[in-house]
Amino acid sequence: MPAVDVAGEFETIERLLRPLAHPDYARNLSDDVAVLPSRPGFDLVLTKDAIVEGVHFLPDDPLDSVAQKLLRVNLSDLAAKGAVPFGYLLACHWSERCGWPEREAFAAGLALDQKAFGIHLLGGDTVVTPGPASFSATLLGWVPKGTAPIRAGARPGDEVYVTGTIGDGWLGLQAAQGQLSLEPERLAVLAEQYRRPMPRLQFGQAVRGLASAMMDVSDGLVADAEHVARASGVRLELDLEVTPLSAAAHAWFDNRIDPEAAMEKLATGGDDYELLLTASERDEGALKREADRLRLRLTRIGKVVPGAGVEARYLGQRLRIEGGGWTHGG
Amino acid sequence: MPAVDVAGEFETIERLLRPLAHPDYARNLSDDVAVLPSRPGFDLVLTKDAIVEGVHFLPDDPLDSVAQKLLRVNLSDLAAKGAVPFGYLLACHWSERCGWPEREAFAAGLALDQKAFGIHLLGGDTVVTPGPASFSATLLGWVPKGTAPIRAGARPGDEVYVTGTIGDGWLGLQAAQGQLSLEPERLAVLAEQYRRPMPRLQFGQAVRGLASAMMDVSDGLVADAEHVARASGVRLELDLEVTPLSAAAHAWFDNRIDPEAAMEKLATGGDDYELLLTASERDEGALKREADRLRLRLTRIGKVVPGAGVEARYLGQRLRIEGGGWTHGG
Repeated sequence: MPAVDVAGEFETIERLLRPLAHPDYARNLSDDVAVLPSRPGFDLVLTKDAIVEGVHFLPDDPLDSVAQKLLRVNLSDLAAKGAVPFGYLLACHWSERCGWPEREAFAAGLALDQKAFGIHLLGGDTVVTPGPASFSATLLGWVPKGTAPIRAGARPGDEVYVTGTIGDGWLGLQAAQGQLSLEPERLAVLAEQYRRPMPRLQFGQAVRGLASAMMDVSDGLVADAEHVARASGVRLELDLEVTPLSAAAHAWFDNRIDPEAAMEKLATGGDDYELLLTASERDEGALKREADRLRLRLTRIGKVVPGAGVEARYLGQRLRIEGGGWTHGG
Repeated sequence: MPAVDVAGEFETIERLLRPLAHPDYARNLSDDVAVLPSRPGFDLVLTKDAIVEGVHFLPDDPLDSVAQKLLRVNLSDLAAKGAVPFGYLLACHWSERCGWPEREAFAAGLALDQKAFGIHLLGGDTVVTPGPASFSATLLGWVPKGTAPIRAGARPGDEVYVTGTIGDGWLGLQAAQGQLSLEPERLAVLAEQYRRPMPRLQFGQAVRGLASAMMDVSDGLVADAEHVARASGVRLELDLEVTPLSAAAHAWFDNRIDPEAAMEKLATGGDDYELLLTASERDEGALKREADRLRLRLTRIGKVVPGAGVEARYLGQRLRIEGGGWTHGG
């Protein structure tokens, strides 16, 4: 069979992954399983996302940032459910370019984010592929029983909010590919945002009792608003001119000839990993207070009305957005 | 970015995967997560294995069998912990050859094994890769609190047992590649064993209180015995001439010029997915009764003694086995 593990699977587990193992539940990575005691009064939240070289990360992205992005796109799903992350299982599909130094970098990225987000490795598998590298992680988190927000809870009259800023991930991909002309510092900020997005865990936990529906923005603001609309059986009206932009995104946006088309790019580009939520008007004050406390930008971008789908407007003008971006798995 | 999803990710989830979703906990695959209530009195057992085209399955293997193998190699890990399987998360890294009919076949394979093993899909991700296809699954199962056998429990004086037969997976790979000359029916049986191994779930559940250590044989009998020896701090002595062989494996073995070398191949080839366990001598009767009840072959193949590593013998002659096979992840 063609694929040979140049760097050694045994050493990879022994020297790089074992130091990352959960002290109590990973069985020191010397079993085939993790065994996790149930936690009375809590629900376990599970999510699994995969990333592929040349599709979700660039062939020359440093592997420490790839490891961090892998964890963060999954942590972002936990954030949207208000879950406190606990641990993860990891599958590494190493490519030929993943020698020992690359694997060390990958493990160093995992270690950084384990510390940043309070999680531990629980188990998994490492295999070698003759194709491009890919990775998947299954993230586990806890929420108090019955409190994880759903996508299906948006009700007519609710307001629509988004955290942070939108479009940096999409711009960052182009910055990382050298396809954007902006000041070098701006390019660096955007590329960093693409490589290491920040899951909004604390905000998600703080507002899980306030949000009527919540999910993270991974496919693009409009596409993810469509997910909420479909699941909830309602229509979301978005005013894209209030879409929150970072200073770097503004610098790009302000130089566009067609601002409407530019905003459409930002609102459909994806890879934002901000939280999109709906909430009753009466909870606006409480939401704002939580956002202020966490020094996180929170922007009201629209309204839930009866109907179906998403109406995206720019200065009152209705945009026709083809497909609304792409979709991905449960 | 290069990879385009020819068959459509949305349709794949909507039409192929949603019918496989757990009715209560998968959120209809329209959320990013599964939310699982804790189960008082039980431990949750988690395992994650990945398989890659050209490495763990053949490029012309039918995708229904690939889906079944993916689930079964993971179910085999649960079997070794005596767990009752419950559900799984799935990551599909589709290659270009995975059009709609191939995805339908994959989903049909999942559906068959969901029924056979009482499990449901809980969530996951589908992505497209420009390289060969690969898949990973995270399997979940329950065991009564504190009862999952470990690898580290083998004690000097214990006997070493293995279920079923050894070597069929390795022979089956060669049969599937057309590299084995045997009667066509034998080749078919062996290739089937490679493509659709049978996880020993019922036996694992029945003996979880009797086994001092238990794991599944995926890396090869000798390599996995070494895992038990290392984890338990003991030495395993194996008498390979009693290694249980299927009729098809016997037909191959009986025509070898060098039986010792042939047995070494079978005992290090891997992909068996039988259970390797150690148990006190006094529990031999109880183990045999459980095996008889389940009409499963159970063979005593050696002994646990003080020391380290594995001594593999053939008719009293000690074999020198280089490396003892390969190893894979926690």
